[in-house]
Amino acid sequence: MEGTQEVKDGAGRESSAGDAISTVLLVFAMQAEAMPLVQTLNLTEDDEPSIFPKALPWKKYSGTHEGLTVHVVVPGKDLKLGVDSVGTVPVSMLTYASIVSLHPDLIINAGTAGGFRAKGAAIGDVFVATQFANHDRRIPVPVFDEYGIGTLAATPIPNLVKALELKEGKLSTGNSLDMTPQDEEIIKANDATIKDMEGAAVAYVANLLAVPLIAMKAVTDIVDGDKPTVEEFLGNMSRAAAALSATIPRVLEYVNAKSISNL
Amino acid sequence: MEGTQEVKDGAGRESSAGDAISTVLLVFAMQAEAMPLVQTLNLTEDDEPSIFPKALPWKKYSGTHEGLTVHVVVPGKDLKLGVDSVGTVPVSMLTYASIVSLHPDLIINAGTAGGFRAKGAAIGDVFVATQFANHDRRIPVPVFDEYGIGTLAATPIPNLVKALELKEGKLSTGNSLDMTPQDEEIIKANDATIKDMEGAAVAYVANLLAVPLIAMKAVTDIVDGDKPTVEEFLGNMSRAAAALSATIPRVLEYVNAKSISNL
Repeated sequence: MEGTQEVKDGAGRESSAGDAISTVLLVFAMQAEAMPLVQTLNLTEDDEPSIFPKALPWKKYSGTHEGLTVHVVVPGKDLKLGVDSVGTVPVSMLTYASIVSLHPDLIINAGTAGGFRAKGAAIGDVFVATQFANHDRRIPVPVFDEYGIGTLAATPIPNLVKALELKEGKLSTGNSLDMTPQDEEIIKANDATIKDMEGAAVAYVANLLAVPLIAMKAVTDIVDGDKPTVEEFLGNMSRAAAALSATIPRVLEYVNAKSISNL
Repeated sequence: MEGTQEVKDGAGRESSAGDAISTVLLVFAMQAEAMPLVQTLNLTEDDEPSIFPKALPWKKYSGTHEGLTVHVVVPGKDLKLGVDSVGTVPVSMLTYASIVSLHPDLIINAGTAGGFRAKGAAIGDVFVATQFANHDRRIPVPVFDEYGIGTLAATPIPNLVKALELKEGKLSTGNSLDMTPQDEEIIKANDATIKDMEGAAVAYVANLLAVPLIAMKAVTDIVDGDKPTVEEFLGNMSRAAAALSATIPRVLEYVNAKSISNL
């Protein structure tokens, strides 16, 4: 906003198109997390040619929601195994390629997460991440250790959080669904309320390319609870996806035509 | 090669340019691993504009070696911390962007690795990876478990290995320099001779975009030895980089103008 003059209406909308949010990129890791929203927003899958290399399983669904351009991207099904391409590597490439091609004003990384009851998480909660860090990149060499954790503060969105009454918490990311004693120690040091498999990688890419990011994670399992993670994760997956598809349209309506600094 | 007629000279070179190797992309994670080779081959750093987005620390050095077009790419120094951008996320994006932009016939992922003495590794050895797998992506859900390990066979290069008398071994990749008991168990299941922090991610991207890959890793530390990994790694780094910069030009000379199926 520096050097420009802001003219706002009562809702904090910019009358100049300069830095008003007009294109949002939604990044999901799993097809089942994304599809309820794709249907809710009536988005259309790309015809050929795609913006992505043809060989890739990556998918993009696009459309408009109340005048806002919305793209949903997923890394798709592994070409050999047929399961969702979860984890940090596919999502970082997908986010990179999508930013370079679509120039979004804002990225929303949405998906499921494990939650810590001791930090106030319950099944079905949708959390906004206030901080990103990794818990499976241990590099015990000075400065590299800090790089491995890779802590990044989230784009501040205090007005959005207040208006939509969203829960907030720090997110810790690792490429495993389970948690070793070493992971647990670092997750605690990261002060995490939620634990996922992609968030910190999306934040790394978004930060590198200077695109604001909101991460919204629905809790499928209680990590410090008494039920097995896998069973809880699979059992609550559709409930979590439904919670996301109910919340995200409200977020899109809120951010539409506002500037990032007003969120 | 199917459907085309091969005409070779005595060295297995193709007289038709159809699938003869003419462009090689070398991917390194650390600047110090790459620079001896950049100097040996007298490659030149790109002037602006780069093929990569301007904000990124990624670097490309290019030139020719005996008629072969050679590009060396590195993810560069972390913008905030100044250390090399090691690990799977930066290298996968860098490899993706480099393939899409440079269309290499062959990728060589070169770098350092830990070696297992029990599998025949010694400090300074240069290994060619025969298989790639991950040891820090535990997803205990059917089929996802296999996706997490992500085993990929290397592009077969029996003639090259024999001609240059290279050592071979399976590679296991994780984002940590150290090794937890869980990592160790999976590394053993992966039957790994060497352990690095990028190889399986480069293999994932190369496989996705159907580009042949050779991974060459110089051993800096003995994982199952009695010296601390970090101390050994730092102490043997320059020796390993020198071993790579001695071996890679011979590999480039061997692959020049041959087809992949003749390697």
